[in-house]
Formats: sequence, structure tokens, C-alpha cells
Amino acid sequence: MPRPVLDFWFDFASTYSYLAASRIGPLAADTQVEVRFRPFLLGPIFKSQGWNTSPFNVYSAKGRNMWRDLERLSEDANLPFRRPEPFPQNGLLAARVALIGFPQGWGERFCVDVFRAQFGEGLRIDELATLCAILSRLGADPEAVLAAAQSDDNKARLRAQSDEAQQLGLYGAPSFVTVSGELFWGNDRLEQALRWAKHGT
Amino acid sequence: MPRPVLDFWFDFASTYSYLAASRIGPLAADTQVEVRFRPFLLGPIFKSQGWNTSPFNVYSAKGRNMWRDLERLSEDANLPFRRPEPFPQNGLLAARVALIGFPQGWGERFCVDVFRAQFGEGLRIDELATLCAILSRLGADPEAVLAAAQSDDNKARLRAQSDEAQQLGLYGAPSFVTVSGELFWGNDRLEQALRWAKHGT
Repeated sequence: MPRPVLDFWFDFASTYSYLAASRIGPLAADTQVEVRFRPFLLGPIFKSQGWNTSPFNVYSAKGRNMWRDLERLSEDANLPFRRPEPFPQNGLLAARVALIGFPQGWGERFCVDVFRAQFGEGLRIDELATLCAILSRLGADPEAVLAAAQSDDNKARLRAQSDEAQQLGLYGAPSFVTVSGELFWGNDRLEQALRWAKHGT
Repeated sequence: MPRPVLDFWFDFASTYSYLAASRIGPLAADTQVEVRFRPFLLGPIFKSQGWNTSPFNVYSAKGRNMWRDLERLSEDANLPFRRPEPFPQNGLLAARVALIGFPQGWGERFCVDVFRAQFGEGLRIDELATLCAILSRLGADPEAVLAAAQSDDNKARLRAQSDEAQQLGLYGAPSFVTVSGELFWGNDRLEQALRWAKHGT
């Protein structure tokens, strides 16, 4: 029997995607659901809503409480937390690299490590040094991977994936989508999304 | 020993406040926390963020998924759900009435019933008939209560409470605030807020 599938949509700059990416592996294994990591770019979706930065920057009271909430939730989940500067960071290159990594088998670990570098260690994910260090640790060849990541084909692949996200009606990250089209938004819905993927209810 | 206290801030038009209001009584009893119901008006806060209606109407993709999410969560919680028309409803009078009810002992049940009328039965909470039926069921005298609710003193009380909400940095509902000033936003944080009220961590 093939495992039920759940798509995990995220943007590397998304704060709550850090929690979801860190939790989803063990939870998916427990529930025997196959999770597909789907990085996309939230920027164009935010732009179409009239925002040219994160809504957590646009709405300051909401932003202030988000940082405190993230700090509390990270502590509950035993995850390191450091507020990144600047915020939001540019996750374009990281997303392109991730797409190279999935068929090569190190993509998911790369994603989890990028989130942890950004939100757990305060590193900048738009800096080559951060991404190269992660790639080396994972046994990938940074130079070859970065060249493939910046190829026209791969850039087009990320654009197509981001278009698909918008067509699915995604408006934030993380989001989870079952094969039957149920959309769940937010790290708080991860368990419910896995349950729906498995049992359809 | 006095029980630890948690403030439960809500707006009667708020969809997720329906879930929180319906769940909070039993959860507070289980955890032995004293919950103070604090109705306020979100409208002025939304206006100061540039919205003249609910953000669920302003951002259509977000709104669509909120309704589906609410439907799924209501089913999980064994709560009836009917999407109200119109949305958002005007909860001004209901909030004024609630303030009369708290010192008289029926205020919290009134709040829970107003939410259920709106989101469980599809009734309009800006209609006197809806509020009077609830008041009668609770053994209150609708005519006397409504007169007191519309007094200048009581109107000023609700305005002051809404100002306090804004000063606390509230930007949505439901919100929960501990005596030490920890702010939690959303029905998803109810359990965590009760834990912080009790244990301070």
C-alpha cells in the first residue's frame, strides 16, 4: 500500500515554518504519511495583497506578539530560538538549492538546517557562506549544487511552484494540502493535516 | 489560596472566539483558573490598521480557508456550525448587555449563547429578538437589562474596555492575557494561556 501524501508548503523566511519544518519529520514517520516538501515564494502573494514586506512588519502589534509567541513555542518544542536580523530574509537562493536537493536525497535535511541556521542560530540565509556550510555538512558539493540551482531550468521550476501555490489559494506559510485538496494553514494545523491526509476526516 | 486569573478578550463578531468561548468554561474548571470574560470592540483596532471590515473579507483567500477551518474545528469540538450572514455582524449591543450580566451572574452564559446563536444557529445578534430570547432563557428581564445596557455609564464602560484592549496591544480575537502581562492570540493558544496563568511558564 502506498502511503498517503501531504504537501508541506513553506517559505524560508516564514517564522512558523521553522517550527513546522522541525516537527514534521518525526510526526510524519509516526503517522506513516509521506510528506512532500514544497518551498515557494510568499513575496509575490503578499505583494498582490498590497504588502511589500511581511505582515508582521506591516502590523506592529501583531509582529511583536508573533516574536514572543515563537519564543514560547520554541521553548516548548525544545528548539533553539534567536530572532533573525534582518527580517524577513531573502530565501530565494535557499529555495532554489532545496529543489536541487530533493531528488538527490538531501533536500529535506537542507531545509530543516536552513530554518535552524536562521531562527536558531541567527545566521543569514541569503549569504553563500551559510548555505555552503550546510551543503558541505550534508555531503553535497556546494559549487556544483549552486550552479545547478541558478540554472534557468531550476529558476523556472521555482517560479512554477510558486504559481501553483497561488493557484491553490495559499496566502501564508506553512500550509498543508492533502491530495483531496484540503488546505490547512499554520504550524498549529500540522497534526490535523496529517490526520486528514491519512483518514480523510 | 485565590485562583490564578486569566483575561479572555473577545469580540462577538469574531469567528474563533466562538470556539474559545465554547471551550473555555470546562478547561478553566479543569485547570482551576479563574477566567474573566472581557468583551471589546475590534472595529476601531481594525480601522487603525486600515481595514473597514474583517480581514477575512479584505483578504479573500484567507477568508475562504478560515470558513473551512472553522467548519472542521467545530466538527472536531462537537459544536454546531452555520456560516452567519452577514459577516461580520454588529456585536455592539451584545457586548453592552454582557457587561450588565457579569455582576448579575448570567453574563458568561449569555456570551456563550450569543456565540452559539450566531455561529451555530445562523441567527443575527444585532437583532433584539435574538438577544431577548437568550436573556429570557437565562432568567433575566430583557427590558430592564436593555435599558441598563444602553445607559451612558455602560456605553462608557465598553468604550473604556475597548481602549484598554488597544493599550494592551491586542490586534485580534480571541486573546488571552495573564496577570503578569503574557499575551496569547487565538483559540489555538487557549490551553497554553491557561498553563501560563497557572504556572507562569
